[in-house]
Amino acid sequence: MFEAKVTIGLKKGISDPEGTNTLKALKLLGFDNVVEAKTTRTIDLLIDSKNESDVKKSVEQMCQRLLTNPVVHTYEIKVVKK
Amino acid sequence: MFEAKVTIGLKKGISDPEGTNTLKALKLLGFDNVVEAKTTRTIDLLIDSKNESDVKKSVEQMCQRLLTNPVVHTYEIKVVKK
Repeated sequence: MFEAKVTIGLKKGISDPEGTNTLKALKLLGFDNVVEAKTTRTIDLLIDSKNESDVKKSVEQMCQRLLTNPVVHTYEIKVVKK
Repeated sequence: MFEAKVTIGLKKGISDPEGTNTLKALKLLGFDNVVEAKTTRTIDLLIDSKNESDVKKSVEQMCQRLLTNPVVHTYEIKVVKK
Protein backbone atom coordinates (compact mmCIF):
# COMPACT_ATOMS: atom_id res chain seq x y z
CA MET A 1 0.00 0.00 0.00
CA PHE A 2 1.19 3.51 -0.77
CA GLU A 3 -0.13 6.85 0.30
CA ALA A 4 0.11 9.60 -2.32
CA LYS A 5 -0.36 13.22 -1.32
CA VAL A 6 -1.21 15.53 -4.23
CA THR A 7 -0.89 19.20 -3.27
CA ILE A 8 -2.65 21.46 -5.76
CA GLY A 9 -1.93 25.19 -5.82
CA LEU A 10 -2.45 28.02 -8.26
CA LYS A 11 0.09 29.13 -10.85
CA LYS A 12 1.76 32.52 -10.42
CA GLY A 13 -0.49 35.29 -11.67
CA ILE A 14 -3.72 33.30 -11.25
CA SER A 15 -5.98 35.07 -8.77
CA ASP A 16 -6.86 33.31 -5.52
CA PRO A 17 -10.18 34.88 -4.41
CA GLU A 18 -10.49 32.51 -1.43
CA GLY A 19 -7.09 33.63 -0.14
CA THR A 20 -7.86 37.31 -0.77
CA ASN A 21 -11.15 37.10 1.10
CA THR A 22 -9.57 35.18 3.98
CA LEU A 23 -6.97 37.94 4.28
CA LYS A 24 -9.68 40.65 4.24
CA ALA A 25 -11.76 38.86 6.87
CA LEU A 26 -8.72 38.30 9.15
CA LYS A 27 -7.91 42.01 8.97
CA LEU A 28 -11.53 42.90 9.76
CA LEU A 29 -11.29 40.67 12.84
CA GLY A 30 -8.26 42.66 13.99
CA PHE A 31 -5.42 40.34 12.90
CA ASP A 32 -3.48 43.22 11.38
CA ASN A 33 -0.11 41.51 11.15
CA VAL A 34 -1.22 39.00 8.49
CA VAL A 35 0.52 39.98 5.25
CA GLU A 36 -0.61 37.26 2.86
CA ALA A 37 -3.06 34.35 2.73
CA LYS A 38 -2.91 31.63 0.09
CA THR A 39 -5.00 28.50 -0.23
CA THR A 40 -4.05 25.08 -1.58
CA ARG A 41 -5.93 21.80 -1.77
CA THR A 42 -4.51 18.38 -0.94
CA ILE A 43 -5.88 15.05 -2.11
CA ASP A 44 -4.70 12.03 -0.10
CA LEU A 45 -4.91 8.82 -2.08
CA LEU A 46 -4.43 5.30 -0.74
CA ILE A 47 -3.18 3.08 -3.53
CA ASP A 48 -2.89 -0.69 -3.59
CA SER A 49 0.36 -1.46 -5.37
CA LYS A 50 3.76 -3.03 -4.76
CA ASN A 51 5.89 -0.77 -6.88
CA GLU A 52 6.60 2.85 -5.92
CA SER A 53 7.54 4.04 -9.40
CA ASP A 54 4.30 2.58 -10.84
CA VAL A 55 2.37 4.53 -8.19
CA LYS A 56 4.18 7.76 -9.08
CA LYS A 57 3.46 7.30 -12.79
CA SER A 58 -0.17 6.50 -12.18
CA VAL A 59 -0.72 9.46 -9.82
CA GLU A 60 0.93 11.72 -12.41
CA GLN A 61 -1.64 10.47 -14.95
CA MET A 62 -4.50 11.02 -12.46
CA CYS A 63 -3.35 14.64 -12.05
CA GLN A 64 -3.26 15.21 -15.78
CA ARG A 65 -6.56 13.48 -16.53
CA LEU A 66 -8.74 14.47 -13.57
CA LEU A 67 -7.30 16.11 -10.47
CA THR A 68 -5.78 19.31 -11.83
CA ASN A 69 -6.36 21.86 -14.54
CA PRO A 70 -2.99 22.45 -16.24
CA VAL A 71 -4.02 25.96 -17.29
CA VAL A 72 -4.26 27.29 -13.73
CA HIS A 73 -2.85 24.70 -11.31
CA THR A 74 0.57 23.60 -10.17
CA TYR A 75 0.84 20.30 -8.36
CA GLU A 76 3.28 18.32 -6.29
CA ILE A 77 3.15 14.58 -5.64
CA LYS A 78 4.56 12.85 -2.55
CA VAL A 79 4.46 9.08 -2.27
CA VAL A 80 5.00 7.26 1.04
CA LYS A 81 4.97 3.49 1.68
CA LYS A 82 2.34 2.42 4.24
CA MET B 1 8.25 37.12 9.43
CA PHE B 2 6.69 33.73 10.02
CA GLU B 3 4.89 31.39 7.69
CA ALA B 4 1.97 29.52 9.25
CA LYS B 5 0.47 26.53 7.46
CA VAL B 6 -3.03 25.63 8.64
CA THR B 7 -4.13 22.21 7.38
CA ILE B 8 -7.88 21.73 7.67
CA GLY B 9 -9.40 18.25 7.43
CA LEU B 10 -12.70 16.66 8.34
CA LYS B 11 -13.41 14.96 11.67
CA LYS B 12 -13.90 11.20 11.70
CA GLY B 13 -17.44 10.30 10.69
CA ILE B 14 -18.02 13.52 8.73
CA SER B 15 -18.70 12.70 5.09
CA ASP B 16 -16.27 13.95 2.44
CA PRO B 17 -18.32 14.13 -0.79
CA GLU B 18 -15.42 15.65 -2.74
CA GLY B 19 -13.20 12.71 -1.80
CA THR B 20 -15.94 10.17 -2.55
CA ASN B 21 -16.58 11.65 -5.99
CA THR B 22 -12.87 11.85 -6.77
CA LEU B 23 -12.56 8.15 -5.92
CA LYS B 24 -15.57 7.29 -8.14
CA ALA B 25 -14.22 9.31 -11.05
CA LEU B 26 -10.73 7.77 -10.75
CA LYS B 27 -12.26 4.29 -10.86
CA LEU B 28 -14.35 5.22 -13.90
CA LEU B 29 -11.13 6.35 -15.61
CA GLY B 30 -9.64 2.92 -14.96
CA PHE B 31 -7.47 3.62 -11.90
CA ASP B 32 -8.77 0.52 -10.12
CA ASN B 33 -6.06 0.27 -7.47
CA VAL B 34 -7.10 3.47 -5.67
CA VAL B 35 -8.62 2.41 -2.34
CA GLU B 36 -9.38 5.76 -0.71
CA ALA B 37 -9.40 9.48 -1.56
CA LYS B 38 -9.58 12.19 1.06
CA THR B 39 -9.40 15.95 0.62
CA THR B 40 -7.93 18.59 2.91
CA ARG B 41 -7.48 22.33 2.56
CA THR B 42 -4.37 24.29 3.51
CA ILE B 43 -4.19 28.00 4.21
CA ASP B 44 -0.69 29.51 4.07
CA LEU B 45 -0.42 32.70 6.07
CA LEU B 46 2.50 35.12 6.09
CA ILE B 47 2.62 36.89 9.43
CA ASP B 48 4.69 39.91 10.42
CA SER B 49 5.87 39.23 13.98
CA LYS B 50 9.04 38.68 15.95
CA ASN B 51 7.79 36.13 18.44
CA GLU B 52 6.97 32.55 17.41
CA SER B 53 4.71 31.79 20.38
CA ASP B 54 2.65 34.95 19.71
CA VAL B 55 2.20 33.78 16.12
CA LYS B 56 1.04 30.33 17.27
CA LYS B 57 -1.48 31.81 19.69
CA SER B 58 -2.81 34.25 17.12
CA VAL B 59 -3.16 31.56 14.39
CA GLU B 60 -4.98 29.35 16.92
CA GLN B 61 -7.44 32.23 17.46
CA MET B 62 -7.84 32.74 13.69
CA CYS B 63 -8.74 29.04 13.37
CA GLN B 64 -11.33 29.26 16.11
CA ARG B 65 -12.86 32.54 14.93
CA LEU B 66 -12.77 32.26 11.14
CA LEU B 67 -10.82 29.53 9.40
CA THR B 68 -12.41 26.35 10.72
CA ASN B 69 -15.77 25.06 11.87
CA PRO B 70 -15.16 23.18 15.14
CA VAL B 71 -18.23 21.00 14.56
CA VAL B 72 -16.82 19.30 11.47
CA HIS B 73 -13.15 20.25 11.07
CA THR B 74 -9.88 19.19 12.57
CA TYR B 75 -6.87 21.43 12.06
CA GLU B 76 -3.13 21.41 12.44
CA ILE B 77 -0.88 24.47 12.63
CA LYS B 78 2.77 24.55 11.55
CA VAL B 79 4.82 27.71 12.05
CA VAL B 80 8.14 28.28 10.29
CA LYS B 81 10.45 31.32 10.56
CA LYS B 82 11.06 33.07 7.23
